[in-house]
Amino acid sequence: MSTERSINFSAGPAIIPESVLQKASKEMLNWNNTGMSLMELSHRSGPFKELIAKIEQDLIDLLKIPETHKVLFLQGGAHFMFSGVPLNLMGENGKGDYILTGNWSTRAMNEAKKYGKVNVVCKPDEFNKIPPKEEWNLSTDASYVYYCDNETVKGVEFPDIPDVGDVPLVCDMSSNFLSRPFDVSKFGCVYACAQKNFGMAGLTIAIVRKDLIGKQLPYTPMMLDFELQAKANSMFNTPSTYAIYIAGLIFDWLKEQGGLEEIAKINLKKCKLIYDAIDNSNGFYKSPVEIKSRSRMNIPFVCKNKEWETEWLEGAAKLKLVSLKGHRSVGGFRASIYNAMSYEGCEKLVNYMIDFMKSKEK
Amino acid sequence: MSTERSINFSAGPAIIPESVLQKASKEMLNWNNTGMSLMELSHRSGPFKELIAKIEQDLIDLLKIPETHKVLFLQGGAHFMFSGVPLNLMGENGKGDYILTGNWSTRAMNEAKKYGKVNVVCKPDEFNKIPPKEEWNLSTDASYVYYCDNETVKGVEFPDIPDVGDVPLVCDMSSNFLSRPFDVSKFGCVYACAQKNFGMAGLTIAIVRKDLIGKQLPYTPMMLDFELQAKANSMFNTPSTYAIYIAGLIFDWLKEQGGLEEIAKINLKKCKLIYDAIDNSNGFYKSPVEIKSRSRMNIPFVCKNKEWETEWLEGAAKLKLVSLKGHRSVGGFRASIYNAMSYEGCEKLVNYMIDFMKSKEK
Repeated sequence: MSTERSINFSAGPAIIPESVLQKASKEMLNWNNTGMSLMELSHRSGPFKELIAKIEQDLIDLLKIPETHKVLFLQGGAHFMFSGVPLNLMGENGKGDYILTGNWSTRAMNEAKKYGKVNVVCKPDEFNKIPPKEEWNLSTDASYVYYCDNETVKGVEFPDIPDVGDVPLVCDMSSNFLSRPFDVSKFGCVYACAQKNFGMAGLTIAIVRKDLIGKQLPYTPMMLDFELQAKANSMFNTPSTYAIYIAGLIFDWLKEQGGLEEIAKINLKKCKLIYDAIDNSNGFYKSPVEIKSRSRMNIPFVCKNKEWETEWLEGAAKLKLVSLKGHRSVGGFRASIYNAMSYEGCEKLVNYMIDFMKSKEK
Repeated sequence: MSTERSINFSAGPAIIPESVLQKASKEMLNWNNTGMSLMELSHRSGPFKELIAKIEQDLIDLLKIPETHKVLFLQGGAHFMFSGVPLNLMGENGKGDYILTGNWSTRAMNEAKKYGKVNVVCKPDEFNKIPPKEEWNLSTDASYVYYCDNETVKGVEFPDIPDVGDVPLVCDMSSNFLSRPFDVSKFGCVYACAQKNFGMAGLTIAIVRKDLIGKQLPYTPMMLDFELQAKANSMFNTPSTYAIYIAGLIFDWLKEQGGLEEIAKINLKKCKLIYDAIDNSNGFYKSPVEIKSRSRMNIPFVCKNKEWETEWLEGAAKLKLVSLKGHRSVGGFRASIYNAMSYEGCEKLVNYMIDFMKSKEK
């Protein structure tokens, strides 16, 4: 890592592999011998059509996406899909089941209320765990069951894909997409915004089961219409071409790392390192999340004296360990360790955590 | 201009000033001493908040936007606003007046039909002119009058802002925004996507009269809700941070050129050069557009023998004059000469046009 670079623990927009940024920098004035930047290139041009086809295929390969499912390159972020999911999938039943485990699933549910009925499947008193399935109240007539696989604010993650029977399962995987392999065939729709694990804000990838496409409500805006977008292969209008290009560079990087199986192993090692430091600190640091629901991507923690927080953050910043402040609704600290955060970056953080603790316990 | 660069006449995504790309390239790994790329920087961070405030102020200065109007940094493209305009502005009257002068205003009207009534104010048989106001059929009870200031496909542009009395005027200025000064106070809402005159795809700027904000229909998706976005200063969710940054670099470049008054003069000189070459070619080249409605931004033209088109395009490409093929619905050629296209680029095109003509008329 070059000496000028920070070690960026931001929850999003977030760290991007340095080699990706170097390539983007190098190609900025002349991409692929076109004599222009990718951002100047017409989306209707041959070179761009080839590029987006390659990127889609790389994603299909990385996730082993079956032919039953369609990849859509959309814009916006998760919020785009908070509306897009009910608009496209509520269908005739007009009802969505929502599993609430944090801020984002709650916001998605509130948005869905505009378009039909919602049923709260479960909601813990505090958003610090995934409630056990025995406590779930699934409908018998829902058009889909919705959940957020990883909640960034409080750092709660589903350990497995929930089993909801035959009802299409819809998942916001914005903050842990591509961080481990998963079985796409289990989903009616799974989506993620790019600015956590595959690039920059302004791009959302949705993977939708083809037989669910075509049920949009009559007042669905064009850009949110899965059928329109699927028929046009995500080129109904100008897509976020540059964000798609950056995502493609990150897919290349993921393949270089050995694919999702390998990145999943590294991600487990990374989060274990930090959780161990918390758990072995004799209560100096604490994680507010139930152990089996802990996120591998976003690790919120507090230290035992709230008054030390500013000093802690300032000391970290001196070592270039940045964007570690907890979400404004939670306080304390939060280390977001997406794919692009190296094991070495996590080690530096842990060393600092221990040094700080020692300095206070002399 | 560096020798490796093409002379890019694409209608969009389109040419970007080389100095802007150089700066973006240089700052890719470390923006403003943050130790990270702008695309890795949290939108909630201090440095980004300062940046977006500066960029908004630069736009206010460039366009002299009055305090009656609010700037919104939205996502998507013009299509986002095709839905956003009726969703936010149809209001109680439930009716929009649409002036049809090409593909894009027509598509906007069709989208508006989902959300209320539309009235076609005028529609020429062919989209090769702006119909005179005597032929317009304005409603007495419309919530707004909509038009597209410059239609890229056939190259038709309004010479002036139409006078529609007290009804709020809404304008899609996607392809000529910032190409000349205009009186923002005359508009209820004016918007533009970024990928013509201020950067990359995935960003739309809307300037909305504040008293018109708050009339959104109940099923307006969050991201399209002007009130939500205005209250959050365009930071309700993660905006297209990198596209906003690029827009900011282009606003800096525009100020260096002397602002909109100066760029408007250059744009007039550029299009005059090309239209003169067409008009002085004794019918070898032809423009299909009525003279007083000709676009300053997109110049479609044909040569007298359709069979020469491929040869013409190939010859142009050898001189690095690229993306000159006409829209697939029109054929022939199209030179899009947005702000970032230099006068020298237009001269090279005109020299080639004349050389080709001479080679055929020997």
